[in-house]
Amino acid sequence: MILEIIDILGVVSFTISGVLVALRKKLDAFGVLIIGFVTATGGGTLRDLLLGVRPIWWLIDTRVVYTIIITALVSIVLRKYLKSVSRSLFLFDTIGVAMYTIAGIEKSLIINLDPVICVAIGIITACFGGVIRDILCRRIPVIFKKEIYATTCMLGGITFFALRQILPGNSVIINITSVMVIIIIRILAVKYKLQLPSLYKEKRKP
Amino acid sequence: MILEIIDILGVVSFTISGVLVALRKKLDAFGVLIIGFVTATGGGTLRDLLLGVRPIWWLIDTRVVYTIIITALVSIVLRKYLKSVSRSLFLFDTIGVAMYTIAGIEKSLIINLDPVICVAIGIITACFGGVIRDILCRRIPVIFKKEIYATTCMLGGITFFALRQILPGNSVIINITSVMVIIIIRILAVKYKLQLPSLYKEKRKP
Amino acid sequence: MILEIIDILGVVSFTISGVLVALRKKLDAFGVLIIGFVTATGGGTLRDLLLGVRPIWWLIDTRVVYTIIITALVSIVLRKYLKSVSRSLFLFDTIGVAMYTIAGIEKSLIINLDPVICVAIGIITACFGGVIRDILCRRIPVIFKKEIYATTCMLGGITFFALRQILPGNSVIINITSVMVIIIIRILAVKYKLQLPSLYKEKRKP
Repeated sequence: MILEIIDILGVVSFTISGVLVALRKKLDAFGVLIIGFVTATGGGTLRDLLLGVRPIWWLIDTRVVYTIIITALVSIVLRKYLKSVSRSLFLFDTIGVAMYTIAGIEKSLIINLDPVICVAIGIITACFGGVIRDILCRRIPVIFKKEIYATTCMLGGITFFALRQILPGNSVIINITSVMVIIIIRILAVKYKLQLPSLYKEKRKP
Repeated sequence: MILEIIDILGVVSFTISGVLVALRKKLDAFGVLIIGFVTATGGGTLRDLLLGVRPIWWLIDTRVVYTIIITALVSIVLRKYLKSVSRSLFLFDTIGVAMYTIAGIEKSLIINLDPVICVAIGIITACFGGVIRDILCRRIPVIFKKEIYATTCMLGGITFFALRQILPGNSVIINITSVMVIIIIRILAVKYKLQLPSLYKEKRKP
Repeated sequence: MILEIIDILGVVSFTISGVLVALRKKLDAFGVLIIGFVTATGGGTLRDLLLGVRPIWWLIDTRVVYTIIITALVSIVLRKYLKSVSRSLFLFDTIGVAMYTIAGIEKSLIINLDPVICVAIGIITACFGGVIRDILCRRIPVIFKKEIYATTCMLGGITFFALRQILPGNSVIINITSVMVIIIIRILAVKYKLQLPSLYKEKRKP
């Protein structure tokens, strides 16, 4: 149940995130729908392929595909209002990332994977849809931009497993807290321009 | 049987389409073969992975791999004649797209997926090989170019399911008609420069 | 056993190869780790997906993931020394390619695939990680650069099956010889700038 709600909320968020990028690239209506679709389904599809889950989540759960189509169409119709909300791309992307990270970890736990690998699957689930979106739209993949992005997913995953030690059995609290941790860290990271310490010597400005 | 012929004809068409793009990018002979191979197998491979079909079609059907190798070698040898036929890239791409769309829908129906999802799988089967080809060759993915492309696959898929209502059981007629519909729409779309209505305000030319 | 050692040695080599490319692109520490990870796991992951091997090799073999993390961290710490060794990128890439080609062929033989298809799987295993690395880092995919690359894997694969005819049962000798053949051919190819005969007319220099 929790897993289902996480899935659908993440789907809506990532579809909008994909639609906004595609609109910026001035794709036609069907191209916008395709980018919304791959952004929303890409990460979960790779997760299911890796875990060997059959069938892939969106193949039998028609709600997912209809949610994507309706979200994309509504977003296209309301595109002027979406665009004017300048932070919307960032916000929806962040919500989607948080939801998908935890959904990926949950599904990995079902087959008893090592926590480090669960977190890796969570990161893949959260980031891969955006990576495909960016490759198809010929942008620099968002995970390599300056603000910490995949790092945030990792911190959310660590929170998840820490809470499981402290509050075993409270999966609702653990899920919601972990999702909130990811969202808050990402908002703070962008607001205060947090980044990992540089590996490279900065050239001094004269 | 129909499914097999569709597969092989699509393989030849897509291999040539890949070879022509790779020749334009001046890849060496083995690079040309690789691009032909991924263009021909990419869409069907993703389809089989998504549907959970094992083993992947071209792993056990050695005819596919030998068809690709022979097609690619013949195309390389005859490259001057292929290139001089300026519409060949377009024509082979269109035939491949039509064949693969219907093959994807057919395979999805075997496991009783929802018609909307069958059409999505058909589009993926038809377009994904070309998308990989374009990403590897660093071109703008063909599905996002101005002429309607994935839209054509969708219209072919709708034709397929409409005919299934009207002529249940006549799978040969349904398949051939749907393939022809896709080919004709695509040729008309390119000839008359049909495109979806723009989502963006055109800047007026002074 | 042989298969395991090949896997781990290949993992180390490919991780370093990925780390070096990512450092050149000035990614942050986590981006470097991700590129190391996808370079090391990408080819084997696609191999396992295609062959239908479940679960994917690195999901249950935690040694792989820890090997990647440790190799990446050590490489980041020692990055100045790694970089100063100007040939290191090439050398590690070559060792990884040789190891993965043979590992891919071995795994394909377990399910009795046709030798031509085994070699194709070997090439995919060896090259796909590097292809993903290059697409993510927005470089020209390494398999299409002038020096023969995928061709080397094919020659190694042919060596493998030739030796199997001559020395049936001596899998250790066959594996080591095939790996060495790939490494030596690749080193010679780069040293003497060997390439496939051009398909294109060279413009004459005045």
